[in-house]
Amino acid sequence: MDTVSVPSLKDLTIDNITENVHAINSQCSDQRLKFLLERTVSHLHDLARETRLTTDEWMATLLFLTRVGQISSDVRQEFILLSDVLGLSLLVDSIDHPKPENSTEGTVLGPFHTHEAEHSHNGGSISQDADGEPLLVVCTVKDVDGNPISGVKVDVWETDSKGFYDVQHADRNGPDGRAVLTSDSAGNFWFKAILPVPYPIPHDGPVGGLLKKLNRHPYRPSHMHFMFDKSGYDPLITALYLKNDPYESTDAVFGVKQSLIVEVGKVDDKDQAEKYGVKTGTSLITYDFVLVTDEAARKLRRSKAEEAMNSQGRKVRFIDDLPVPDVD
Amino acid sequence: MDTVSVPSLKDLTIDNITENVHAINSQCSDQRLKFLLERTVSHLHDLARETRLTTDEWMATLLFLTRVGQISSDVRQEFILLSDVLGLSLLVDSIDHPKPENSTEGTVLGPFHTHEAEHSHNGGSISQDADGEPLLVVCTVKDVDGNPISGVKVDVWETDSKGFYDVQHADRNGPDGRAVLTSDSAGNFWFKAILPVPYPIPHDGPVGGLLKKLNRHPYRPSHMHFMFDKSGYDPLITALYLKNDPYESTDAVFGVKQSLIVEVGKVDDKDQAEKYGVKTGTSLITYDFVLVTDEAARKLRRSKAEEAMNSQGRKVRFIDDLPVPDVD
Repeated sequence: MDTVSVPSLKDLTIDNITENVHAINSQCSDQRLKFLLERTVSHLHDLARETRLTTDEWMATLLFLTRVGQISSDVRQEFILLSDVLGLSLLVDSIDHPKPENSTEGTVLGPFHTHEAEHSHNGGSISQDADGEPLLVVCTVKDVDGNPISGVKVDVWETDSKGFYDVQHADRNGPDGRAVLTSDSAGNFWFKAILPVPYPIPHDGPVGGLLKKLNRHPYRPSHMHFMFDKSGYDPLITALYLKNDPYESTDAVFGVKQSLIVEVGKVDDKDQAEKYGVKTGTSLITYDFVLVTDEAARKLRRSKAEEAMNSQGRKVRFIDDLPVPDVD
Repeated sequence: MDTVSVPSLKDLTIDNITENVHAINSQCSDQRLKFLLERTVSHLHDLARETRLTTDEWMATLLFLTRVGQISSDVRQEFILLSDVLGLSLLVDSIDHPKPENSTEGTVLGPFHTHEAEHSHNGGSISQDADGEPLLVVCTVKDVDGNPISGVKVDVWETDSKGFYDVQHADRNGPDGRAVLTSDSAGNFWFKAILPVPYPIPHDGPVGGLLKKLNRHPYRPSHMHFMFDKSGYDPLITALYLKNDPYESTDAVFGVKQSLIVEVGKVDDKDQAEKYGVKTGTSLITYDFVLVTDEAARKLRRSKAEEAMNSQGRKVRFIDDLPVPDVD
């Protein structure tokens, strides 16, 4: 520790503690972490000063956060849920995955993605729930110039017909309502599923308690999650929402975007029904996803980061593509 | 839910999500909670926007907070520790317990206070650690006009000679190194203890990992905690620090104040030694604590809260003595 550069940390007051915490944290050699900590400490301290936070409120908050951590497990992530209901998750996705106008918008990942879904061939069924309304999903994935992208790994996940993800069932035997597909040479991918239903986010824990205190409902409108991954393209985390869902404009986690709302159609063509191995009259969702290249996303991220840093009156430099203040 | 006042939560962007989260949270009927949430969401969102927080950093932070919650238990509070090393704990104590100039300053509570210390008579010993250097502590507690205050409940706690609090020992049999005393009719209280030693805060968990990344040491200078409670007086949470401790000016949790540093003396008077039942030459700490009345603290808190709210351009009103924006 280079004690020379550290001020004497004595007699700290409401007015001088922030700069002194910054000073001792500035010993950190990781410039990005140092920047994140500096902003975190400033905002935390300003929050306490502005609200005149009391010791009781401080303690209640720490105990709330402790419960959020303690209810989390391998199959439940209450901190993601907390981030979701405060709008932070959508914000971070928007910052990290900026989209040019002609590409598919992203939305919240949510706490229910897993890394254990089975790989499925196109046309396979991702749901074993016999009570769900059968659904055919037929999509394409292209670049911003309209060229099909083959070999894209597509993660899809949805709840069962009761509104629960597989991981929410204590007695689950393995993955259900989820699969990993691959787009074919024409950029197509298709699968059988069940029609999504609205559902409440888990609200038996501390986050549910918070929503209740805020007089907010815990419901998400009917949707199906998609995540796209292919080398050379910026990962796309998104979802499709069903039109006219009762929670379409009051999503508890702020995920709905007009461009991601789809109208559910029907398979009314006998040839189509035969091609996909479904009955005519089966519900149908179609969508054309558009991915952005890594390079385009990177440029957009950098220019927006420069803008944000400049508006804080800071010069910026980039370390591993992440912005830090340029103090030289 | 009064959906009329809630905007359509669709197509939220980096620039409009904050006001929309505020709008839906404004359904909360608890005005103080609404204010705390509004400031929390604003600061969280600004933090993400200013730093261009990435999805990976967001996830790493949520997993860090999860670990902080999960390592916490009945006898370990890692969130208090996190608050301590970020300077938040000292700040909140300073805000909640403002001190007029002629009263004893407060400092961090720390995570090791318990509610199970035994009541002790004046003169008793609070430590069973035979390896510690014997210490006599002789104090008074008075009001700002110099009048002794009798019947004050005084919580004291310190580590053993190895730098560990009783609750840090897995095999502890009961309270040790702590006691609850009561000031006598002349405002005096006194007890036998052991000379405090410097010690590291628990650094085998996520908070220790953070300090390491920041190149900060985890040590606290030698000190003894005191907490004063009597109806009509503002609770005083404080500590005494030993002069010339190697960590005197680099306390990991920012607790040291010049006015709380004491010089360790010796019991050199035979009569004094006899009076307190110690040997001559025993180490001695004396201190005169000064409490503020509830009413004086309340007035100071309110005037400082008004100042802080006005400097945010907000009119203020008080609910149960807590400030909220006056929007009428």
